[in-house]
Amino acid sequence: MIKAAIMGYGTVGSGVYEVIRTNEKSIDKKVGEEFRVKYVLDLREFPGDPVMDVLTHNFEDILNDEEVTVVAEVMGGLRPAYDFTKRCLEAGKSVCTSNKELVAKHGAELIQIAREHNVNYLFEASVGGGIPIIRPINTSLTADVLLEISGILNGTTNYMLTKMANEGMDYADVLKEAQAKGYAELHPEADVEGWDPCRKIAILTSLASGKQVDFEDIYTEGITKITTEDFAYAKKMDCAIKLVASSKKVGDTYCAMVSPVMIHREHPLYMVNDVFNAVFVKGNMLGDSMFYGAGAGKLPTASAVAGDMVEAARYQGQTLPVFWDAEKLELAPVSETSRRFFVRVKEGTDVSVFGDVQTVDGGIAGEVGFITPVMTEAEYVAKAEALTVISMIRVEG
Amino acid sequence: MIKAAIMGYGTVGSGVYEVIRTNEKSIDKKVGEEFRVKYVLDLREFPGDPVMDVLTHNFEDILNDEEVTVVAEVMGGLRPAYDFTKRCLEAGKSVCTSNKELVAKHGAELIQIAREHNVNYLFEASVGGGIPIIRPINTSLTADVLLEISGILNGTTNYMLTKMANEGMDYADVLKEAQAKGYAELHPEADVEGWDPCRKIAILTSLASGKQVDFEDIYTEGITKITTEDFAYAKKMDCAIKLVASSKKVGDTYCAMVSPVMIHREHPLYMVNDVFNAVFVKGNMLGDSMFYGAGAGKLPTASAVAGDMVEAARYQGQTLPVFWDAEKLELAPVSETSRRFFVRVKEGTDVSVFGDVQTVDGGIAGEVGFITPVMTEAEYVAKAEALTVISMIRVEG
Repeated sequence: MIKAAIMGYGTVGSGVYEVIRTNEKSIDKKVGEEFRVKYVLDLREFPGDPVMDVLTHNFEDILNDEEVTVVAEVMGGLRPAYDFTKRCLEAGKSVCTSNKELVAKHGAELIQIAREHNVNYLFEASVGGGIPIIRPINTSLTADVLLEISGILNGTTNYMLTKMANEGMDYADVLKEAQAKGYAELHPEADVEGWDPCRKIAILTSLASGKQVDFEDIYTEGITKITTEDFAYAKKMDCAIKLVASSKKVGDTYCAMVSPVMIHREHPLYMVNDVFNAVFVKGNMLGDSMFYGAGAGKLPTASAVAGDMVEAARYQGQTLPVFWDAEKLELAPVSETSRRFFVRVKEGTDVSVFGDVQTVDGGIAGEVGFITPVMTEAEYVAKAEALTVISMIRVEG
Repeated sequence: MIKAAIMGYGTVGSGVYEVIRTNEKSIDKKVGEEFRVKYVLDLREFPGDPVMDVLTHNFEDILNDEEVTVVAEVMGGLRPAYDFTKRCLEAGKSVCTSNKELVAKHGAELIQIAREHNVNYLFEASVGGGIPIIRPINTSLTADVLLEISGILNGTTNYMLTKMANEGMDYADVLKEAQAKGYAELHPEADVEGWDPCRKIAILTSLASGKQVDFEDIYTEGITKITTEDFAYAKKMDCAIKLVASSKKVGDTYCAMVSPVMIHREHPLYMVNDVFNAVFVKGNMLGDSMFYGAGAGKLPTASAVAGDMVEAARYQGQTLPVFWDAEKLELAPVSETSRRFFVRVKEGTDVSVFGDVQTVDGGIAGEVGFITPVMTEAEYVAKAEALTVISMIRVEG
């Protein structure tokens, strides 16, 4: 029998407990023996909840119990999650997590500690919730060099942008509604400013490159400046406006960024709506592929954590291959990447500096919208300096 | 150093050789040591092709070379692929294949032989070409009970249906064009009659259930009767017509079938166009997910075979978990499954037998189209008997 522990009984933690209990028979079969939760760690009490049978307030109970070989860390935040994870790994227990902050910050180190102790640090749920993407990168796309990983990696902002597109709601109203529904937090900066997808694309870029990508290095722009007028133009362009976290191979490194993007209807990310997430991957042999699913939510995220726990249980004493060294990756500068830009300016503005632009009639009085030819970010910035730009959104493809 | 062999130097085989040579450095890193092709088996000669350095006409060269521990079987067909695969496995060599006929027919047996010899029989490329779906089912979706696997699993027919939808071409013309472009074969039955996706959904259902699903048991209907008129109605219904291979959990078993389906634009499979494939998976915890990519083609398929070869090289002497026993699964009868049906009949036909139908105005003179309420296939057949039905297409969702 394999004994497991769950650290944290919040949304994801209670989901992990539910998944393992609901699918007990099927999970036992996949693991190859009985798989049971011996401890759930939380400082709170949960009167009447079956978790009371296994609840502990003391981390040492888990740490010192040699029977426990698989631990889920679903507490979130850096402390005490970092210390608990490290001590579990050092004690020979595999740790499976949904904690993207911790993985983005200390992933390379924790993977290395796991390797030294013949256990695993697994983090499928840290990116894309229930969407299998980490393990496919590590075990399926291994014959390819990854040229691009781009994703809609935040459900809250995708829900908001979908509402704005379909119902013509403006940003402030849609944020209020998302907060009322519990999709957005009272302090929504991590989502709407793009900090959450920034950490996730840092993790994916680390796995694609095999080196440490610091999320602080990634150019990040949120959705707070997107207006209903932008969507009027997007519709005319047969585009959706999405908050895209992208990473593209440039020479021996990658250029990563998070920003709103005009995505044409021919692109697979175009149809990713509401709280759904998707990760688009281009391999040099495979071509285009996409992984789509529930990017957040209690049970989908818990399903991914529990799937990692099954892998950890199957491979006791053996570290699964993962390439993510502590060596820092110097990202390619965004200023040198090339693309087209959608730009709105006051009517009558001379835009000849951009060359052969393509005008878009968004039907908005007093202004014009246009798409520039392909140019670098640096070129765009230099040319745009002379103009008063109402808004600019990057164009994909 | 790991030594590999490729059996068959056709489209996929030459692709596998190209993938391994092109991405040599990256693959060596993923494997953890040098990974080289020592033999390519083909009866033909390829003057001027670098493969001549490693070409052999004799299977025994591969079989008897103990250095060779990983073999790709990309010959296609049942013979001699079955015998070659079996003998390789028995000789302690892992075999990786794109051969869906062989996997559908003898998968359970070959997996069992592999297990007995501590090697692997891997077949990611047999379903969905380059799309990672087999390994995600075996290693990522392990905490879920799979309620549904439905896919667009044939690129040829999806290309044809996309052309018919977008350009109003009729079936005969689009088939001719697909044949001219090399997307469809001269004898296109395996594609247009649905036999190819039938084998693929048999494989996926075997993995979902853990038992043997015989493809001969699966109700299969192709696209040969789909007309331009059907697309006129589909557009009005905000639907695409797709050839869908589906498998849904019914009690302790699954109901599998292949048929054209009206898919609403809200469903993720709606946007899968041209030669692309996708597999939609619903887990009881995960909810909806989808895996999208190139369903065929030399390099995408070869990428999947080569990815399997990397896994086989990493896990020498260890059989990776896969659940597919020889015990036959009795599929649930299609007649008892329920759905809505889109039906076309002559104008003036009394359709009251179907109850509260929803009329669709396809703008076709002399006929009417309508959608039935939800009913079983058996009920539909009984009710439709009294009418002269011009065409019927099942409605998803």
